[in-house]
Order: sequence, then structure tokens, then C-alpha cells
Amino acid sequence: SSSGRRDARPAAITPVAAVLPAGGSGERLGGATPKQFCALQGRPLVSYTVRAMERISWISSIIVVVSPENVETMKSIIEKYGHKRVTLVKGGITRHRSIFNGLKVFAENEFSNPLLQKPEVVIIHDAVRPFVEEDILLKVVMAAKEHGAAGAIRPLVSTVIASGADGCLDHSLERARYRASEMPQAFLFDIIYGAYQQCSDYDLDYGTECLHLALKYCKTNAKLVEGPADLWKVTYKRDLYAAESIIKDNLSQQVCVITDVKEAVAQVGFVLHESLKSQIEVETISIFLSRNDSHLENIFSGQCYNFVCVNDKKCAIQETQQLVDMLEKSNIPLLYPVVLISVQLPISENTSFSIGMEELTRIKKFAREVKKKNILVYALLIQYK
Amino acid sequence: SSSGRRDARPAAITPVAAVLPAGGSGERLGGATPKQFCALQGRPLVSYTVRAMERISWISSIIVVVSPENVETMKSIIEKYGHKRVTLVKGGITRHRSIFNGLKVFAENEFSNPLLQKPEVVIIHDAVRPFVEEDILLKVVMAAKEHGAAGAIRPLVSTVIASGADGCLDHSLERARYRASEMPQAFLFDIIYGAYQQCSDYDLDYGTECLHLALKYCKTNAKLVEGPADLWKVTYKRDLYAAESIIKDNLSQQVCVITDVKEAVAQVGFVLHESLKSQIEVETISIFLSRNDSHLENIFSGQCYNFVCVNDKKCAIQETQQLVDMLEKSNIPLLYPVVLISVQLPISENTSFSIGMEELTRIKKFAREVKKKNILVYALLIQYK
Repeated sequence: SSSGRRDARPAAITPVAAVLPAGGSGERLGGATPKQFCALQGRPLVSYTVRAMERISWISSIIVVVSPENVETMKSIIEKYGHKRVTLVKGGITRHRSIFNGLKVFAENEFSNPLLQKPEVVIIHDAVRPFVEEDILLKVVMAAKEHGAAGAIRPLVSTVIASGADGCLDHSLERARYRASEMPQAFLFDIIYGAYQQCSDYDLDYGTECLHLALKYCKTNAKLVEGPADLWKVTYKRDLYAAESIIKDNLSQQVCVITDVKEAVAQVGFVLHESLKSQIEVETISIFLSRNDSHLENIFSGQCYNFVCVNDKKCAIQETQQLVDMLEKSNIPLLYPVVLISVQLPISENTSFSIGMEELTRIKKFAREVKKKNILVYALLIQYK
Repeated sequence: SSSGRRDARPAAITPVAAVLPAGGSGERLGGATPKQFCALQGRPLVSYTVRAMERISWISSIIVVVSPENVETMKSIIEKYGHKRVTLVKGGITRHRSIFNGLKVFAENEFSNPLLQKPEVVIIHDAVRPFVEEDILLKVVMAAKEHGAAGAIRPLVSTVIASGADGCLDHSLERARYRASEMPQAFLFDIIYGAYQQCSDYDLDYGTECLHLALKYCKTNAKLVEGPADLWKVTYKRDLYAAESIIKDNLSQQVCVITDVKEAVAQVGFVLHESLKSQIEVETISIFLSRNDSHLENIFSGQCYNFVCVNDKKCAIQETQQLVDMLEKSNIPLLYPVVLISVQLPISENTSFSIGMEELTRIKKFAREVKKKNILVYALLIQYK
């Protein structure tokens, strides 16, 4: 499924940019650290969201808007996690003012930075919604291209009620007629920027809904797109727990089987795939590891942390070394332990047992070294005929 | 704080009953098990909610409404976790029909069961909201007594929008004017039962909001009471993760130091309290363990699972035994491992080392036995002068 995902792109639209407001103060979380900077499995929430955007090849530019006091924090996150295509912008005192600041960068691209070319469509997405997938992004972008504006929605979980001045129930809304407005949202750039330019100070200071601005100031009725449940906004401390558990779940539920292009080796890879796929999400690729393979890089950036590398025993350690090098370059092991199982097939019949032992000692030494780099190497020697 | 809580009671109201609809099918969770029966730390969610109600002494009766196919499951949960004051009722095909079935039990108390006396006030609370505290229950009950109906509310997390027939935005609601209606809710019994009796089939089949019924059929504008964030409804799989993490957090963040009434021993208890309190929530009590102490029972039912028992070495094992007996009777170790650290002070100077060793062997044997009962005993022998 992940390989299919990567081929999709809103072909007619170039470029698409994204603005991520990350200026929240995290009051509702009850902690000192704003929620977008809270660490999940050691990595700040905002970094997961940036990464989710970054791995979509057709999003050419990502603006992260943070409050002035968090500029340095965000800079160090971008550096530490090697985020690309990201521009940092200082936010205003409200959500709308922050988003407006983010959009201005494109409209006023003084330095003719190619990253900051005015896009046809702009995605607006909260930094505290880390689990955004290409599918919903593509849907809102295509809908925005057609309707001028679009946003993800979800069914309401609770009934919504209006209270009177006395603090008593005035009326309750019929739940089925209403939806919760979530993120991502997407807009033709000129529409949302035009709306912000015409916007009253009251709207900038007290409003929260971009779709409302597009409707009020540009008469654009946004297309509403039903989104998945995982789009929810990390708001309370319990949401951090939930997000962390989802991340842990995802970590362990994917494996990539990498096989040599040689026939016998590819066959073992296929057998492995078949037996693993009922347990876990598996992708199998046949490659020359000696070439820099872009498909493999896509898998790295698709956040897969478990690899089974099947190869001919003769060049096992070289190929494992190459894979380790690529993993290191990808910066993944900075974030999480990467498990790499090297399966070695003695294809040539005349391999003696003593050579096998020698190889084993070399692999052990190698595994000890790379463990320091957060890459856990295990090796299997399999008799296969 | 937990001891203060337990003294509050709506004195003028006798009795208060609670109805817990637990008939949901758990569609939104995406799993086969309805969410109220999902296990958190090995215990079904509904059992946490029942327990939260059960430990409030002024709630005299708890009706759990489950769908017919789950009656046996719920029966075994009540038995396994030793729930008291619970009556099981078969639900209808919708939420409102289930709640109505629960209320009918009081109105039609054919067998004059004292547990099922018609209450003045009835609390309605979802089985999938396990973290309900006495404070908010008391608030809605008192407000219901005054206004006829009351319900907990929370600020909206997302903007609420209405869509047109074309699937596009029609209008968005001003977030500040609306609230999410949560649980618990409370009603004068005659009002909510009267509302259900007059209620249309359409309301019974498609409605979701009890406050709405009280308003529509009994002209009662419910008092709205701001509730804590932890009242949220476990709806998605991520909510189970969050709930489990909250339970784990609570488990590890409380310890009760129990000391003998003898001066030296109480002094050590005090020192322990002082040094632990910056790390963890600590309560220290000085008691004769030989008497059945109601304060200690309150602590058990307040869900504290870590105990440090400081005593004079002479009767250490007897006192530890007594505490283990009380813990067993409380049924807590059925649910969670209870950690019990026995700190023994050799107050009499003439205690020989060999006696200490003998004692150690006895404690070890004792610890091995009670471990089977889910009580983990550790012993420390401390030189203290």
C-alpha cells in the first residue's frame, strides 16, 4: 500500500505548499511545555507532523509558524531531525494572525526564494495532528482546486449544546446535522490570502476557523471531506499518551524485506513475505544494494524501522554495511532503534563450516559497532536448496 | 485529599441511584469487543466505571444496562471484581431505550427490593467514562435537586459546522457560544422518568441527549456544570490507550505509609513521608493494625496500591500478615499487584543478628506465598536509633 501511495500526486498543481501553525501555548495540557514540543518516544510532536508533510513529494514547501519565544527551540528541532523544505516564521498573538504571517511569506517573497514561490494551493494543518496521511491531503487539495476551499470533517462525539445567560441549557443541536471541523484544510492561495487581507481585527483576534473566513470574505463554500479518526488534535495530556501508543504500534507493525536480484535470493524474500504478511505489514523489494535506490529511500522516509535483508552469503557483510550506511544517512536511527536482520544463504555448495564461523565473528563485531548508532543487526545463516 | 472527599454527601437526599448505559456496540473502535468490555491493565473498562460509582457511599444503587447478548459477560465481571449494589438490566436497541429500561426498574420495583427504592435523584453516566470523581457527581446531583436536571459540559475542542446538501460548508458555529455535553448528568427521578414516558418513538430511536428530553417534555432547563477533562468518553482505540496510560499513572503515583502508634515508629513514618512527598502522593497514617481501621479501608477503596508499613520488629510479621488479610478482603489484589514494603525497626537493643536472619527466612517464605495472591511483599531491616 505504501508504494501505491507514493505515486499519487495532484499532477496539475505545482506547487502545493503547507502552513503549520505551531504557536499554541498548551494551556489545556496543564503542563509547562506547549504540546507541539512535548516529546513522544523522545521526539517532539511537531517533528512527527513536519515529517508527515515532508514525505509527501508534491508538497514543495512547509512553513512552520511558532511564537517568537520558541524560534530557537524549533530551529534546533529542524536541525536535529534533518527536516528539509521547512521555513520558520514568527507567529502572531492568535491562531489566525499566525496563519496570516505564514501566508504572507509567499505573497511577499522578497528574496525570490524558490522554496517560497506563491503556490496555487496551500494546505493549512495543525502541528499537533501528527498522523496525517497522503490520502486525506490529496483529497483536500483536489477539492480545494475545484471548490476554492476544502476541509477535513469528523462526526461529533458529544452532543453540542447552547447555554443561556443563566448557565442553563438553552437548546441542544441535532447531532447528525453537524460535524466537527478538523484539519487538514486546503485553499486556493488567492482565496485564503484574500480572506485574511480583508479580515476584521475581531475575526483575527477571536476567530478559529479558516473555512469561515473563506466563506465570509470570499463567498467560498468549502468542500467538506470526511477524514479518518487519527486526524484528531492532540489537546490534553491523555492525547499525548494516545499519540505515543499509536507511534509505538506503528513502529512494530511494518517490515521491509530487501532481497538481492539473484533468483534464489529473491525467492526466499518472496517466501518470507508470504509467511509474514498475515502478521505484519510487509513490503518486499528486489534491488542492487550497491546502487543508491530511491525506492529504498522512500521506504526509509515512510518510517519503516524493521528490515530483513536476504542475500547471497558471499557479499553479505558488504551489503549489510551498505544498508547501514544508507540508514545512517537517512537519520532514522537518530529517532528510533532500527532492527536489521541479515539473512544469509550459502548458495555455493562448497562453503565450508569454518568460513561460516569466521563470517559470524565478523558480523558480531560489526553488530556491536553499529549498535552504538542505534541500528540493531542480527544475522541468520540459513541452509536453503 | 482522598479523606476529605469521602466526607462530602448530599445530606438531604436519600437515596441517590445511578444508571449506567453500557449497551454500545463499539463500532467506532473498529474492534470486535464493545469498548466497555475492553480490558485495560487486564480489567474491563466498565468495571472501572462501576467501581468509581461504588466507592461513593451516598450512591445507594447502581443499574448497569447491557444488551441481552452481554448479560452473561457483565454478570461474570460483577462476580469477578466483587461489585456491590449493582443490578443488571437488559437494554433496548438504542441508547434512550436502554436508559428508559434502567429507570423502569425503580418505577416498577415489584419485589420491593430495598436496593431498587425509587430515588429522589438519579445519575445517568456512561460506562465508557471511567474517571468520574465524587466532586463532579456531587455537583450535578445538587444542581439536579435545585433545577430538576443538570449535566457536565466541556469546552468544544473543534469548531462545529453545518454542511449543506451539496457536502459543502453551510455555516460554522461560534465556538465560544457552544459546549460539548458530557456525562455525568443527574435528574429528579420524576422529571426524567416522566420525560421518557411521554417521549416519542422518534426521540427514543434517534435521540442521544437526556437533557434535551427533560427540556422538551418537562420544560426543565438543565443546569450546566463545567466538568474536568478526564470525563471524556472512550470512543476510539486511541482513547483506550489514553485511559490505560492514565490508570498506570495513577497506580504508580500514590503510596500510603502505615506506621505503628509507638513514638519511634511513627517518627520514621514521618521522615519517610517528608522525603517521599516531593516525588509521589503520600498519605501517612498511624494505627493499631490489630483493629479494623475504617480509615485504612477508605484508603484501599481510594485505589492506592503501594504501601510502606513501618513497625517494631517484634511483631513485624504479624502486622504484615494482618495488612495482607485486609488487602485480600478488599479485593484490590484481584485487580492489580499491590506492593507492600515492610520496614522493620529493631527498637530493642538486644536483638541478635541471628534472630534477624530467622525473621528474614520467615518473611521470604511469607512473601512467596502471598505473591500468588498478587501482593508483592518486600522487607527492609533498618538500624535506627
